[in-house]
Order: sequence, then structure tokens, then C-alpha cells
Amino acid sequence: MNLSQFQNYTAKDYTKAIQQGNITTLSKAISIIESTAEKHQTLAQEIIEGCLPLSGNSIRVGVTGVPGVGKSTFIEAFGKILTKNNHKVAVLTIDPSSNLVKGSILGDKTRMIELSTDPKAFIRPTPSGDSLGGVAHKTREAIILCETAGFDIIIIETVGVGQNEIAVHSMVDFFLLLSLAGAGDELQGIKRGIIEMADVFVFNKDDNNNSANIRIAKADLERALHLYPAKENGWNPKVLTCSALNKIGIEEVWNLINDYIKITKENGFWDAKRKQQNEIWFEEAIKANLFSLFHNNKEIKNSLSNYKNQIQKQSISPIKASKELIDIFTKNIKSK
Amino acid sequence: MNLSQFQNYTAKDYTKAIQQGNITTLSKAISIIESTAEKHQTLAQEIIEGCLPLSGNSIRVGVTGVPGVGKSTFIEAFGKILTKNNHKVAVLTIDPSSNLVKGSILGDKTRMIELSTDPKAFIRPTPSGDSLGGVAHKTREAIILCETAGFDIIIIETVGVGQNEIAVHSMVDFFLLLSLAGAGDELQGIKRGIIEMADVFVFNKDDNNNSANIRIAKADLERALHLYPAKENGWNPKVLTCSALNKIGIEEVWNLINDYIKITKENGFWDAKRKQQNEIWFEEAIKANLFSLFHNNKEIKNSLSNYKNQIQKQSISPIKASKELIDIFTKNIKSK
Repeated sequence: MNLSQFQNYTAKDYTKAIQQGNITTLSKAISIIESTAEKHQTLAQEIIEGCLPLSGNSIRVGVTGVPGVGKSTFIEAFGKILTKNNHKVAVLTIDPSSNLVKGSILGDKTRMIELSTDPKAFIRPTPSGDSLGGVAHKTREAIILCETAGFDIIIIETVGVGQNEIAVHSMVDFFLLLSLAGAGDELQGIKRGIIEMADVFVFNKDDNNNSANIRIAKADLERALHLYPAKENGWNPKVLTCSALNKIGIEEVWNLINDYIKITKENGFWDAKRKQQNEIWFEEAIKANLFSLFHNNKEIKNSLSNYKNQIQKQSISPIKASKELIDIFTKNIKSK
Repeated sequence: MNLSQFQNYTAKDYTKAIQQGNITTLSKAISIIESTAEKHQTLAQEIIEGCLPLSGNSIRVGVTGVPGVGKSTFIEAFGKILTKNNHKVAVLTIDPSSNLVKGSILGDKTRMIELSTDPKAFIRPTPSGDSLGGVAHKTREAIILCETAGFDIIIIETVGVGQNEIAVHSMVDFFLLLSLAGAGDELQGIKRGIIEMADVFVFNKDDNNNSANIRIAKADLERALHLYPAKENGWNPKVLTCSALNKIGIEEVWNLINDYIKITKENGFWDAKRKQQNEIWFEEAIKANLFSLFHNNKEIKNSLSNYKNQIQKQSISPIKASKELIDIFTKNIKSK
């Protein structure tokens, strides 16, 4: 793989190659999007603008669940069914890498062995990086690129149950919560919080020695779901069971997603949701551009390290320093 | 409780009452800090500036662990030992409330019953809210206020293993990871990512029928820890076991934290870490102030809904709209 080919690539070159389904170019373009280097930012925006009209024609599925629930095994089994049915599947994993340990938790080459060698599949860990709405923003842009490359099913995988899931919910069409039976009382509490986000609950590890537990958990959850008000999309969240390891019950998940698509496309919710998500995307893009404007300001660049020194010496409080820096910014900002 | 008393309160009144340990005022002040209303922002900043010189004299402990690990039970048992030893304990829980379900996951009144009625304890859920570095920023400010009110041990509780934990690690002196034995292979992967953050691993639920599992898990983890390079703070992460439910092994955790304090205060790491955290705080404060500047700009206020309409009608892409809005901002920003 010769990466020097990209040295003179324009945004148009990228867009064209991505549209032709060139995976090397797609990977490179996602790296450019993820880059925080200033030189990459204009190129990144141009690539996305170029791909945007070519994107949107996919089913975006969010998959989440607590550690140990078997997300990779599930996605591997699920993805293989899709590629066998001639779909092209992109898996974007949002990776809560530690700031200290450089390297990714989910990025192991050993995960999803079958899917990662499938020519119809593309697996890409997205480091969740620092804050500034980065998670959602960059992943959303990666979705656009994958769709332009012809991937018609995009799976967004997250770990745990927190901020990232809320961000992911704001960019997918369908939200799948992988669950375990009998994983402790507190899990029920978590479910209560994200229950409105989930379109389906799938109890994994429905194996012989666990089957009774799963029946009970499924019945309990179905009872609980009846207590919630009907959702505005006309879809009542379902409860399924599967054994990702034994590849049992996976096809049923795909059938259910197709039911969901049919219903929400008919009642207009599918489009309405995408429009609403565009608004969230707008807010994220504002944040990203605002930070870029601030940190590329010449006077800010000149003052920042001085303030950092003063904070180190404890001669100014972080709050006061930030206020003074904002004043410098407002005084020195120039309209272009 | 008569909240109208606060109507004419100045920042000085707040600071004074907080310093006197008035819990009602402390609660009210934290609400002001958490408020996104413009009218509260100046007051909030003044209260924090007033409290800042009175703060810092506490031990800040982060407690995290996956759902079901028994965090509340542990914090209740741990907190009771501290208050019995005449410490004043504040528990700030970072609450990944759903954006859809208004209401908090961790905010149940039924959690930590003993501790919540203890006059030496203060329990406060902090909604993690939306992005913009809100989690860390607001919690950091709540810590300042609690310290001013005389709480000398601050416990920051988070759920799950993701972004929030990284934020919390950047504001605590000591990071405790509550663990379960045999919770699945993937948990080991997670540990690998946050292993450098944890100062102690505490296996909870060390009860009769689980004891053998815990011995194995503890030995495994201790072996794994040996493979990691020594930490810069001169502290090697330890592994403990406890039964929070039966209040066994909790005192040992507190003793260990005291060992940590002694070592890191002697070798200078305690102070160095706090200074480093101030720098992170600085960055968060910049973000918060920058957003406030942007969204309070008159021209932005006038244009924003127009752009939102255009995005709804799909007559402009979110990316293009955000760029145009940033241009409006730079043209209309005035130095004060």
C-alpha cells in the first residue's frame, strides 16, 4: 500500500476515489477528518462537502451494551448475514481510549476476525479523543464518507452506557441495546435511563445453560416496556434473544430492523428523525468551527503559553485566566 | 426551607454562607453553577471566584465501575466510616441522564439511605447534561464549593467506563476502580485502557460464595499489574477486596488512600498533579466562556433560527451553515 500517492490529492480526487469504493482512500480520508492538524482542516471540510450529496443512502444502526455482553461477537455474526445478502457493511467503533494509554481498547486486530477479512465489510475504530463534541462530530463525518463509498449499512458500536450512547443515538436510524440476563439490579436502573433510546433489546448468550434466566429477563423487560408511553415514531421497542456465538437468532434481528424501516418510512418518522439529527449536527459543527477559530487566532496562540505558565505558578486562577483570554480574543478577532 | 431568601443574595452572601457550612445555600449555589441561564452566569463566576481561595483542602476520590458492581453500596459503607472518623463527606455523582428521559438515573432517593441522612454527609447528583466539556467543568466548580463548605473528603462517582471517567480522573487525587470477579473477557480489555488511571482496584462482593473467584481474579490482576511500567507518582496500583454489603474490607480502602496521600505528598506528586489539573481546568473554562460569548452575541441570536429553518428544509448542509454562522460571528464581535 503506497500512501505517498495521496501527497498531491485534492478534495475532488478523494471524493472521486471514495465514490469508486477505494478503501485505502476512504481510510486515509477518515484519518484526515480525525486529524487535529490545522493543515488538514480545510481539506477535510472540502472532502465532506464533496461527499455529502452522495451520502445518506444507508441504514445506520447503533449497537451498544455493557462490557462483557458480547458486542464484537454479535456484530461479527450480524455483519456476516448482511454481507451474505450482498450488503456492504461499515462498522465504526467509538473507542473510549484512555488519555494516558495511547492506543485503543477496541482496536484489537483479534476482534471480528471473519468480518475484518470480508471484502464487503469495513471496520474502523474511531478514537473518541478529547471532548469538544468530538465523538459525534467526527463519527458523523465518517458515516458520510462510508456511505459515499457505497456502504449501505453502517453499524456504530459503543462501549458502556453513558455520554457516547446519547451522541450515537443522535446519528443512527435504529438503536440496538445488547443485554445480559441477571447482570445485577443496577443494570435495570441504567435501562430506565436509556429505555427510550432503544428500538430493540437483544438478550445475548441465549445458550442452553442460560436459557431459563433469559426467558425470565425477557418477560420482565416486556412487562416493564408496557408501562412506558408509546413512542412518537409509532414503534414499540421489542425484546429479542440470541446467541451470537452460535449464530442463533441473528437473522431475526435483521428482520426486525426491516420492519422498523418499513413502519417509520411509511409514517414519515424516518425522514423527520434524519432532519432532527441534522440540527444536532449543525450544533456540533458550530462548536468545532468555533474552537478552530479561537485556537488559530494569532494573539491567542501568543498568549496561551504565558497564561499556562502563570497557572502553573498559581499566580492566576484558571477561571480568571480564561476570562482574560476571551477578552484578548474579542479584541483581536478580525473579520475576513 | 424558604428559597426566596436567596432573591437578593449577592455573590459575597453566598460565599459567606457556604463558608459557614450552610447546606441549603451550598445546594442553591451548585444549582446556579449548573444553570445555563444567562442571568446566572456572572453570579456563578463570582461565587466560584469567592470560594476559590477557601478551597483545595480536601481529598478528592474518584469512584467508578461498571453498572452492577455495587458503587452506591460501597460509597455508603465507605462514607459512613469517614463520617464516624469525624470527616465531612460530599458525594458528587455524575449522572448520565438520558437526553430523552428527563430525570436522573443515579438520583434515586433510595440510594445511600444511611449516608443521605447523615448530617456530616452531602450527596448531590450532577447531571452530565450536554457536551461542551460540561461534565468536568461544572463538577470541578461543585468541588470548590463543597470544599469551601468544609467537606474534607469529596467522592466523585461515575457510571460506566468512558469519557466521564477520563474527565473525573482529571479532577481527583485518587482514582478507585470497583471491580467484579469473572465479569467477562471484555472487561479485561477495558481494564487495559484505564489501568493507568486506577490507583486501586477493589473487587467488591467478596462474599462466601464468591470468594474463590475473587482470589483468582485478584491474583490475575496483580500479575498483570506487574507487567506495567512503574507510575511516575511512585505509587504502584494495589488490589483489594471487600464486601460493601457486609461492610467488610472498607476500612482497608481508607487506610490505603492514606498511604497514597503520605507517599505522594512526600515525593511532590500530590501538588504536581493538582497543578496539572488546573491546566486542564483552564482549557475547560475557555471552552465554556467561548460558547457563552458566541451564543450571547446579538447577531448570532438573530441568525441562528433562520439557519435552523434552512437546515430543516434541507436547503443548506449543517457544515456550510455552521461556516456561515462563524463568519457572522467574526464580523459582529465587538471588543468591550
